[in-house]
Amino acid sequence: MADPWKECMDHCLEVTKEAGKMIREALQKDIFIMQKTSPVDLVTETDQKVEQLIISSIKEKFPTHSFIGEESVAAGATSNLTDNPTWIIDPIDGTTNFVHRFPFVSMSIGFAVKKEIEFGIVYSCQEDKMYTARKGKGSFCNGEPIKVSGQEDITKSLVLTEMGFKKDPEHFKTMMGNIETILTIPVHGIRSPGSAAVNMCLVACGAADAYYHMGIHCWDMAGGAAIIREAGGVIMDISGSLLCRLLGPISSHIKRTKMPQ
Amino acid sequence: MADPWKECMDHCLEVTKEAGKMIREALQKDIFIMQKTSPVDLVTETDQKVEQLIISSIKEKFPTHSFIGEESVAAGATSNLTDNPTWIIDPIDGTTNFVHRFPFVSMSIGFAVKKEIEFGIVYSCQEDKMYTARKGKGSFCNGEPIKVSGQEDITKSLVLTEMGFKKDPEHFKTMMGNIETILTIPVHGIRSPGSAAVNMCLVACGAADAYYHMGIHCWDMAGGAAIIREAGGVIMDISGSLLCRLLGPISSHIKRTKMPQ
Repeated sequence: MADPWKECMDHCLEVTKEAGKMIREALQKDIFIMQKTSPVDLVTETDQKVEQLIISSIKEKFPTHSFIGEESVAAGATSNLTDNPTWIIDPIDGTTNFVHRFPFVSMSIGFAVKKEIEFGIVYSCQEDKMYTARKGKGSFCNGEPIKVSGQEDITKSLVLTEMGFKKDPEHFKTMMGNIETILTIPVHGIRSPGSAAVNMCLVACGAADAYYHMGIHCWDMAGGAAIIREAGGVIMDISGSLLCRLLGPISSHIKRTKMPQ
Repeated sequence: MADPWKECMDHCLEVTKEAGKMIREALQKDIFIMQKTSPVDLVTETDQKVEQLIISSIKEKFPTHSFIGEESVAAGATSNLTDNPTWIIDPIDGTTNFVHRFPFVSMSIGFAVKKEIEFGIVYSCQEDKMYTARKGKGSFCNGEPIKVSGQEDITKSLVLTEMGFKKDPEHFKTMMGNIETILTIPVHGIRSPGSAAVNMCLVACGAADAYYHMGIHCWDMAGGAAIIREAGGVIMDISGSLLCRLLGPISSHIKRTKMPQ
């Protein structure tokens, strides 16, 4: 049987390449000029332009489809996931990295039908790495198959997370406590690249063994979710479900906190 | 006047390219095979082979020169810096990254005469970025000039550090306390790429604004020191000297701990 979503995935790849080029160009603007004006304005402008490019291009080809985009939601759009084919878009994942030109800035698109992710694409712009995954067909980086490390011993694992300042003291304390707990297991190390979608791809290709994050949004992970799953990994919430041999033990070390809404 | 150390720097670049190729080849070995045997053995073997390659090549050309190399010191050699021309070598900086194929693995060489660094070369192997700096001549990445961000507002800075498990509880507590203090200044973010030499180069090219590290060795920083300095940055110890406008404020936030010798 022909793949019913092949045309969508092909189009997604095309539009990702086009949008990726736009992000790369924005990143090549002189960093010193950028910092003298407002890097935050530049990233917001690029974020919105990229999302508009992606959505308008897809809408033209697939007018009945739905969208959940970080920028559209920020502008007041709803983010209800229905059974309708839905494109879940993060135009720039790693906006702080973008502002500083830190090496990991990505674009992420996940495509869901009947609330299930059918394919995902993440483009790591500065690295020029295109990660792709189609349900049941495996995960790829620039066309080469990738898979998770398969590491089962948590003490031999490299763990990714992100650290940020949170005004909620309870949330911040939990975040710091989790880092301390993970480090003292001990693990090989903790790394924080600064882009959720890239983190997921690093786990998918075995460059890290696990990634945990408090307060992630659906657009941060929709593309990466397909890539992790097709590379042999799993995604789970923080309740500690033992779906994954490695993430199970990690989640039992991580404390929960009530997330700010 | 002709540059008295040009021949040394040219040779350093040649040997770095050759050694970098060796590291890249080792990194391309199948990660799954590697993890089934012993990745630690592979990194140790590559570390030693690369350092031997570098030292023997330089010794042949400059037989009177001295060497301080991470692996030689580990094998019992002394690490006394004299006035003699001295090559300070870290064959693989980021050994944990090497084991996991995490994207930052580097080779670092600093060349000192009369205890002053004359030039430094850092090669970030997976990124294929060659950072070079000659005293008074500026810093370069793949031949393009680079400079530090010039950011003077610590609350707008991206800060690099490394987190590791330390058996000394006082050291570990200080490390965690420093991360908490830096985050709550607040800063834009903290990143931890996992290679000291790469961290220094990221600061040198403005992708991050500062990097602090407790317990760094001379071979971790000799190459990067030249690159930072020639890119307009400074290196300082943790006593809080105000040589640098940005690092000054950061160091006043960082607590000291007695370092294990």
